[in-house]
Order: sequence, then C-alpha cells, then structure tokens
Amino acid sequence: MANAASTRAGDPSPGDGYVQSFARGLEVIRSFSAAAPQQTLSEVAARTGLSRAGARRILLTLQALGYVTTDGKLFSLSPRILDLGFAYLSSMPIWNLAEPVMESLAGQLRESCSAAVLDGSDIIYVLRVSTHKIMSIGLGVGSRLPAFCTSMGRVLLAALPEDELERRLLASERTPRTRHTVTDMALLTRRVAQARRQGWCLVDQELEEGLISMAAPIIGRNGRTVAALNVSGQAMRTKATQMQHTMLPQLLVAAQTISGLLLAQRA
Amino acid sequence: MANAASTRAGDPSPGDGYVQSFARGLEVIRSFSAAAPQQTLSEVAARTGLSRAGARRILLTLQALGYVTTDGKLFSLSPRILDLGFAYLSSMPIWNLAEPVMESLAGQLRESCSAAVLDGSDIIYVLRVSTHKIMSIGLGVGSRLPAFCTSMGRVLLAALPEDELERRLLASERTPRTRHTVTDMALLTRRVAQARRQGWCLVDQELEEGLISMAAPIIGRNGRTVAALNVSGQAMRTKATQMQHTMLPQLLVAAQTISGLLLAQRA
Repeated sequence: MANAASTRAGDPSPGDGYVQSFARGLEVIRSFSAAAPQQTLSEVAARTGLSRAGARRILLTLQALGYVTTDGKLFSLSPRILDLGFAYLSSMPIWNLAEPVMESLAGQLRESCSAAVLDGSDIIYVLRVSTHKIMSIGLGVGSRLPAFCTSMGRVLLAALPEDELERRLLASERTPRTRHTVTDMALLTRRVAQARRQGWCLVDQELEEGLISMAAPIIGRNGRTVAALNVSGQAMRTKATQMQHTMLPQLLVAAQTISGLLLAQRA
Repeated sequence: MANAASTRAGDPSPGDGYVQSFARGLEVIRSFSAAAPQQTLSEVAARTGLSRAGARRILLTLQALGYVTTDGKLFSLSPRILDLGFAYLSSMPIWNLAEPVMESLAGQLRESCSAAVLDGSDIIYVLRVSTHKIMSIGLGVGSRLPAFCTSMGRVLLAALPEDELERRLLASERTPRTRHTVTDMALLTRRVAQARRQGWCLVDQELEEGLISMAAPIIGRNGRTVAALNVSGQAMRTKATQMQHTMLPQLLVAAQTISGLLLAQRA
C-alpha cells in the first residue's frame, strides 16, 4: 500500500539493520513447514541463508519468548505462534459474521465452503467450513494458492484496477496445475473481466483435476470487495453446468447476506 | 522447556537488546485484536508501552515486510501474518489425521468438536469442527482459554508432573467464570487427578453458564499426551449425566482412533 511516510528520512528501509534483523527473525519462523516441522540449527541456517551463529541467536530468542521449543538439538514451533495469526483473524470482525452463514451454506449444499483474501498474486484462506474433504490438498486457514487459477482468486483480481490486475497476473508464475489451467495473459484477463461483469466466477478443474469451484465477492462497507466466498464440488459427481444451476443461487445469496451483515454492523 | 544452551554466555536473555526489540515487534502484532482491529501510532504505543518513535519504527518495519498495511493514519494487520506459523501449525500432520475423525464425531453427536494444546496455563484451540454455534464466545483456531476451568485444560494438565501441575495452577489467575467455577487449589488438584485416573474429564458450566464439555487425551507416538479432544453440549438440552452416557463412549473412541492413527503414521 502506498505510504508517503515510509519515505521520510530515518524510517526503516530494506537496508536498515533493525528491519533486517526483525525480517530475519520472521524468516526463521517461516522456515518451519510441513516438510520441516523440526529443524536443527544447521537446517534453519541453510533454509534462511543465515550464518549458524545468526540462526542460533534468533532461535534462542524465539525460545526465550516461548515461540520455539527445543530438545537441545531439534527446534520446533510452539503453539504460541498461533497468537500472531490469531491477532489478525480476530481483528477482522467479518469472519465472525461470515461463519454461521458459511456453515448454513455448507450444510445446505453438503459441500465445503471457504473464504479467502488476496495477498499479492496469491489468495490466503481465512475461513473454511468443511463437510467432507474433497481435495487432495489440505486447505486450512492460512493456506496459500495462486490467484490466477482459483475461483476466489479471479473474483478478488476482478476488483483491482486494470493496471494493477495486469501487474499481479504478470508477477504470478502461472504454472499450469492441470491440462485445463488457463495461463495465457489475454485469456486470463478476459476470464477476470467476465467474473467482474457477472459478479461471480466458476473455475472448472484448473487448480486440480476433478475439482470445480465457484466464488462470489463479499463487499465491505466502503463498497469494495474485501474477500471472496466459495463452494467447491467434485466434477465426477456434479457437472459444471449442473453446479452452476444448483449451487450458484445459494452461493450468491450467502455472499450478499455476509455483505449485508457487514453493512449493518456498527462502525 | 529446559535448555542448558540458553544459559551459555552470549546467548539471548530477557534483558538482551536483540531479544527485547524482537519481542516488541511481536508485541506490536499482538496488540491488534477484535477490540483494536485498526490502530493509530499512538494507540499502538499506548497498548504496547513503547514510545511513539519506537512504535512507529516497528510499524513501518512490519509495513515494509508486508505484514501491516496503513492508509497513512490507521494501521491494520495484513493476511500475510498467517504465514508466521499459523499456516504450518494449523496443518500439522496430526490435525490432518484428526480432522476427518472429528468431523465424523461432530456429525454423529450433532455437537461441536475441538482439539487444543497446552501453552503455559492456557489452552490454545488448534482445530474446531462445529455443527452450530453453541457458545457465546467465538472459538476459532488460535483462541485461548484458561486451562483450569476447561475440560481440555484439565486433561492436558493431568499429563504434567505434580510439581509442574501445581506451578501452572498457581500461575493461573483462576478467576471464576460462573458460579460453578472451581478455583480452590486443593479441589482443582483433585479434579485434575480424577481426569488423570479416569482418562477423561467433564466440566459442567465452569467456563460458561449452560455449557457442558467433555475431553479426552490424544496420545502421541512417545506415549505422551499431545493434545486434548472435546465435545460440548448445552446444559439446557442435555444434562451432564446424560451427556456422559451418550457422548463419552464416542468421544473416547475418537480420541483413541486419532492416537492410533498417530502411532500408525510413518515417522
């Protein structure tokens, strides 16, 4: 986001020592993953590009603060880390309003229902109500997916000004996920324009074979898209046209209900 | 966790400048909440005890890293915050294994089912499968509750050595939440001992009027309690003895199923 203040003299910049050390601390946290749930000092150093001494200092700092635990050799994140993400999630009243609506929608359709927001060229899941797992990829809160090939992503991209949309699409890797994935810039731009025009979007097996997803925007008090809501189904069970017929009306009503609740909410 | 390394000369300690500045950065993140979703510089300074200059430096650092956005006056967290451990912890292999079991349990009982871990004297929710909202407090992943007055808390406390249990209970504020909340140390210790002996725990309206909750431990590959599983119901609808009769067997089976899946999982 543009911010004139950040260019004032004395403000942090990427070359700033404080910014750098703080950034490195956060990088150490991010180096833990499903592929690396427990790491030795050397592994953390290798993954973050830090020296062993630097990685050690940050790990012990994180340990002193209760965010990391260790048996002396292997380090892992502690559940206290969830406080950081929880601060974000709980600072968004929208999710408390959205959850019962999404539960009701998932229950009616007997399909999973999610909400996501845009971060750069990715979408980040912020809420998920699942009936049964239908995807091979686990998509918990905080999961990222590329925006260009997801229904929620296209609905969120559709809310951007044209130049910003182009910038984000170009910044995206646009790696095909299936043989259906649209990666061509001109065609993608048309698909996003279509989502903008019709106020919803259907993506048919572009993210994963067998997965059809539909999304609609959630509109904030300021009239701008603040998040996207989706339902997905299995192509084996339900054809795209049938899904659009049976599920789209309820999805649109749910998205409008949440938008309405946001509007009704006291500021 | 005990760690001899942290006492070596040159390692971070709470008085260490680097630890302090990193801790302050994380405190700024945590100062955002449902009550303070957007904050001015002065508000962040007031909430964290930082000087305005210090708060400004950290906020602009977080902004430079994409974790905070601002309109120039008001600051708010960005969804990128979820990259800090939340995405990873909320998708740990145990929760992927546990989720379908919990969904099935919640479906059978038509009651919400949650999993939590211990952090100090609190429990932190790591997974929740809800049928319908039955509590006045929203309990998403990352929510904290005091351990002493919750069924999952007592099950988790029951896994601690006696001296550690006493230490955590004493460290807890033990504020009564309802007229049923047990706050007396001796009685609490007995209740925890009972949970240990019987392998489960029922808490009857000690957290919230009208809320009955039962919990059982999930046992890890090392034979230790790694998390607690619970179901809750409304006292108005189901008496505690009836809940114990109808729900406990299925809760215990679910907890054992998840423990079994953990054991069967390749290392």
